[in-house]
Parts: sequence; C-alpha cells; structure tokens
Amino acid sequence: MMRFSTLIRHPAEWMIGGTVDNAVVLTSRIRLARNLRKIPFPGWATAAQRREAMDLMLPVIQELRPMKDAFAQSLSGLTAVQKQVLVERHLISREHAARTEGSAAVIERRQTLSIMVNEEDHLRMQSIRPGLHLRVAYDALNEVDDALQEQLPFAFDRKLGFLTTCPTNLGTGMRASAMLHLPALVLSNQIGQVLNAIARLGLAVRGLYGEGTESLGNLYQISNQSTLGESEPQIIEQLERVISQVAMHEANARLKLLEDEPIMLHDKMGRSFGVLKHAWLMDSKEALNHLSVVRLGACLGFFPKETVRLCDTLLMEIQPAHLQLHCGQKLSPEQRDERRAQIMRLHLQNVTSPVTVISDHNHHPLSDSNPSPEP
Amino acid sequence: MMRFSTLIRHPAEWMIGGTVDNAVVLTSRIRLARNLRKIPFPGWATAAQRREAMDLMLPVIQELRPMKDAFAQSLSGLTAVQKQVLVERHLISREHAARTEGSAAVIERRQTLSIMVNEEDHLRMQSIRPGLHLRVAYDALNEVDDALQEQLPFAFDRKLGFLTTCPTNLGTGMRASAMLHLPALVLSNQIGQVLNAIARLGLAVRGLYGEGTESLGNLYQISNQSTLGESEPQIIEQLERVISQVAMHEANARLKLLEDEPIMLHDKMGRSFGVLKHAWLMDSKEALNHLSVVRLGACLGFFPKETVRLCDTLLMEIQPAHLQLHCGQKLSPEQRDERRAQIMRLHLQNVTSPVTVISDHNHHPLSDSNPSPEP
Repeated sequence: MMRFSTLIRHPAEWMIGGTVDNAVVLTSRIRLARNLRKIPFPGWATAAQRREAMDLMLPVIQELRPMKDAFAQSLSGLTAVQKQVLVERHLISREHAARTEGSAAVIERRQTLSIMVNEEDHLRMQSIRPGLHLRVAYDALNEVDDALQEQLPFAFDRKLGFLTTCPTNLGTGMRASAMLHLPALVLSNQIGQVLNAIARLGLAVRGLYGEGTESLGNLYQISNQSTLGESEPQIIEQLERVISQVAMHEANARLKLLEDEPIMLHDKMGRSFGVLKHAWLMDSKEALNHLSVVRLGACLGFFPKETVRLCDTLLMEIQPAHLQLHCGQKLSPEQRDERRAQIMRLHLQNVTSPVTVISDHNHHPLSDSNPSPEP
Repeated sequence: MMRFSTLIRHPAEWMIGGTVDNAVVLTSRIRLARNLRKIPFPGWATAAQRREAMDLMLPVIQELRPMKDAFAQSLSGLTAVQKQVLVERHLISREHAARTEGSAAVIERRQTLSIMVNEEDHLRMQSIRPGLHLRVAYDALNEVDDALQEQLPFAFDRKLGFLTTCPTNLGTGMRASAMLHLPALVLSNQIGQVLNAIARLGLAVRGLYGEGTESLGNLYQISNQSTLGESEPQIIEQLERVISQVAMHEANARLKLLEDEPIMLHDKMGRSFGVLKHAWLMDSKEALNHLSVVRLGACLGFFPKETVRLCDTLLMEIQPAHLQLHCGQKLSPEQRDERRAQIMRLHLQNVTSPVTVISDHNHHPLSDSNPSPEP
C-alpha cells in the first residue's frame, strides 16, 4: 500500500496539468454520494455499524482498477497534520477530517480520484481534472460508480434516485463544480453582478474550501445546487455552459483592464510580486491574495507563462498543514508565516518581471555613471 | 555665470559625500542671518529699497573667492519648478521661493555654500557638509562672513550682537542643524523619548523641510534654538555632543532590533525593497518611507553598502519639482507617481537582496525539478 509521504510528495495531477490558455478555470470536480442499503447513514450508525460498512466497502474499493496501489488509510491512522494536508489538497472534506473510528480515505496515486468512506454518506467519491473538463471527470467517476454498484448494494429508489443523508443530494447524488480564478472581475467591480447572475441560474458560488468558506485569492467555486429531476449529463452540460461564460467575462475584463488601466494593473502586479519575492513573514491570506495577482500577471504575460503553474502549486504548498508536513514538525502561526515567506522567496527568486523602460528620452542625472548613447 | 541646468545636473556634494560609517547623520548645516545697516529689513522695505540692498550686496557676494563661477540669479528669473527644485535641494527656503522682485540666490558650484539675498533678512548664508561636521561647515561660512563684513556695513549691536528680523535669530544670527536618519528609534518606539530629551536641552526637532514640516522617511532635523548669550563655537560644540549621542542611540537601537527581532526587521526591509523595485505608481510619502527602510537595510548590510548613497540621492530626485525638471514638462500628481516609480525601478534593478537560505534540511516537493545534492 502506498505511504502517505509517497502520495503527498508530488503535487496532484490536477494542480499542475492545466493549460495556460484556459487558466481561468483551475479545476473541474465531480463528487458522487452513495449509501449502502440496510446500514444506517453514518450520522445515525453506531461505531460497530460504521465499521461494518467500512469493512464491506474498503476491499471492494481497493480492488477497483484505478485504485491498485492507491493510498488507503483509516482516518484514525493519520495525524491531525496529515488529515489537514488532505483537506488542503481537496482530497477529503473538512468534515471528514474530523472523523476517526470507522472512517477511511482511499486516494489514487495521481490524486485525481479519491473516495471517502463514512463521511456524511457511506461513500463520497470524487474525480478532479485540471481546466474545464467536467464531462471527462464525470466519465471517469461514473466508471468507478458502475464498478462499485456491481458489488455493493446501494440505496436507490426508482422515483427518488440515490438516497443520501442530506436531502439536497438526493437523486443523482452528484455535485459538479469548478474552481475559477476571477481577479479581473473583482478588480473591475463586476464580480457581484456575475455572482448574482450565477445564483439566479440556481447555481451555488463558494470560496476556496467549499461551503461557508470565504473567497480568498479571488478563487470561486461554482457548483450545481439541484440533484433531482435532471440527468447527470444535463446538469454537467448546463454548468459547463455557465462556467464558460463566466470565464469569457473574466478574460474580457482582463483585456479591458489592460487597455484602460495598464499602469494601475502593472502597479498591482508589480507590488504583489515584489512583496512575495522579498517578504520574510506572510500569513496565508496575504499570500493567497498576492499569488492571485501574480497569477493574473503571468496569464497576461507580465511574468513568464510557467509562473501560472508555479502559483497554482504554491497556492497549495504554503497552506498551514503542507508547511508543517514538509517541515516535519508542528509550527506556531509565526513560524508558519516565516516559513511561508521563505518558500515564496525561494521559488520566486529566479522569476523576473519585464525590464523597466523609461519611455521618454530626457537625460536623467542619476544615469551619469552609466555610459549612454545620448548626446 | 553658471546655468541652472549646469548647477542641478549633479547631486550636491553633501548629498553623496557622506561615509557609510556615519550614515545616521546625513548632513550638517550652518546658517547665518545678516542685515545691512540703514536699509529696512526686507519685510518692511519698499521694492526700491529691496533692489537697492540687492544691488549693494550681489556684486560683493559674487566677488567672494568660493563664489567665482557660482550660480547667481534673481528669483524673478527662475520658473516655479526651478525654485521648487532649489527648495527640495535645501539650497533656498520655501519662504524665499515665494519671493520675486529684489530677491536673489547665489549658489556655489558644489552646492555646499548658498546665499539668499532678501529672504527674511537681507542675507541668509548657508554651508552644508555631509555627515556630522558642524564645525567644518561653520568655519567655511565664517570665512565668507568675515569677507563680507569687510565690505558690507552689517547691522550689529555691541550688546545684542547681529540684528535680525526675527528676535529668535538675534545675537549670533546662527542656526546650526543636522539631518538625522532615525528609523530604528522609530521602529523600537523610542523616538518620542529621545525627541523629548532633545527638547528639554533647548534644541528644536523638525521634519525634512524645516519648521512646521512633518517627519517623513524617519528623517529629523535637530537644531539650536538660542542665538543669544553663547558664542558660535559653544553652540556648535553642545549641538554636536547631543547629536553624537542621538546617533549612538540610533546605532544601538539598530543592533538591538537586529538581535531581538531579526525576522521582523528583514521582513520590513524586504517588503520596502520589493515594492520600490516593482511598483508602477508611488507617491512621495510612500517613496520616502520605503527609501528610509531600504537605507536602514543598506546600513545593516542587508543590501550592498553603496545603496546608502543611492537612497540619499533618490530621496532628492523623486521629489515633485526634481521629477518635473528632469522630465522637462509639468506633470500631474498621477504622472509624477508613475515617473517616480519608474525611476525607483530603474535605479534599483541591479540592487539585490541577499540570497535566501532555508535553514532546515527538509526536502521540499517544489524542489523536485532542481537537481539537489540531498538524498
């Protein structure tokens, strides 16, 4: 079985696989909720019943073709920091991390597929892909779901569909979502309008870590709300259409900012870059916000294109549990701020911003020491 | 006669001549106020009387040995921007810049000696030196004063000494001052205490541009208040003693900060450096404050030593009139902010901060792409 350190040593494939052309949409994610027949939902089950459900499901999950050599672990076997790392990497939920006895996580090597056992439902399966590829993510997960259904008795009602702990998941049991980076819509004060329009379409908008979390780093998660009355492909198709439109709005807002307020934009990008490159103390919130601006700058060609990927990776790596895991020890918030700034300096040291050109030809006295071709 | 552009092309000698060892005290300045007998003080004189005084004094001043080939100009012959440049360079006072008819300025080539004709008094002479060298500055000015006295009938009273427009200058007519950079006393919250102690000794503390100006960039001007009852050498000796003590307090505060809060200090220095190096818009106040912190960093060896001199020069060059003069046109505040940021980026582009070393030996996943000697 894969060790935790082996799993986590590399970034998830969806963290780094995106193309820069489609850099507005970071990731596409599908989640399916399933429950076993005849065993109470995890919230109502006794410890023995939860263990019974786990013992029934785990061997079947581990036999799945994509789960060969996967990381599989009872949550009681993980430290608090390890569980928090999985949360930061979106591989398990915050709620799941709080569980112990009878709960487990199975995570495929490339981290594109992960399954939580005894979260709110008996099974929560997730598939993530870089960019806007909800259908690809769905197809991969659907295959897993089909394979599991052949061997596990899922609670299913002809009329209602899949039964779930929370009625909002009833039916398909599916939540489809994408993570979008919308800095230009925020900078040009259009974000409120866009989010309202999304809400009116019956979709949900959340922050970086899902329900109830703040939007940090101009990152927004857009997902379907309804799981009843429509088929999975219909839901996905509608969501992809809306997300494409939002991404186009963001792309337009970027070009318009660049055209209308280039200096303001360069100033913002330069300042965030300068602070990330040279600060010695930085909290998560500040780091996410500066990374967001530098990521925008990289998308606009102000920094080398590969900086987009670097920002996406750093976004993950500078979070509290990741910092402590790599450091091999518990760190106080101040120590984390110091370490976070170190990592930023280290990884940005070879990134450069474009050469500064003073556009007019007036002679400047400080240039006296430099030979100049001007008269 | 020297042209304005020739005068201003180079930084003043006192702006760049200081040694880094004594970087707390930027400059030492002596000013003497003198008036002619029988002609009313400028504030009470008619335009004709002011011209009469000027016509009497100017030829004598221009004959002084150090004033051969000096810049000499009636203020009515200077543009608003040119006058403001002289104010920013501390060569004439703000009050003098507001005068026109019958007022003039004579400024020696190296800008260490300047004489205002018909400011508040008929003559205001000034000598500036880099570092803490009040006595040297005084001796140079005293020589000029002696030479002028041989040819001009100064208003002098046996009991009161030199007569001046403002009674606070009566007696010696001398104001001795030094400009100090006290960032560590500010950062460690000791500045209030130190300024109070200075005030109790009967000395005055002011901001960058003298009376009634704010302290920007942690720069403080300390000067004598009393001009009666003591000889010039006594006043200077006392002032130099106090200034030496303040400079020592600052030096100690720097070392203590470096010892007690190295990360906070590095963070401050790094952030100011990063912002100066990468911003595209910056107002004067922000620029002065960041330059102050970078200057501290250079004194402490965080940046190359020559950065101290660069900061001192930039301090002057990024001010509104200097910017407009070099640009050859009037600039709006927004244009100045843009130009100021350009100049900062240009001159800091080759300055580097020390290499970042992550102190522990844990392997970091982002380093995977770099070959590493570690296992």
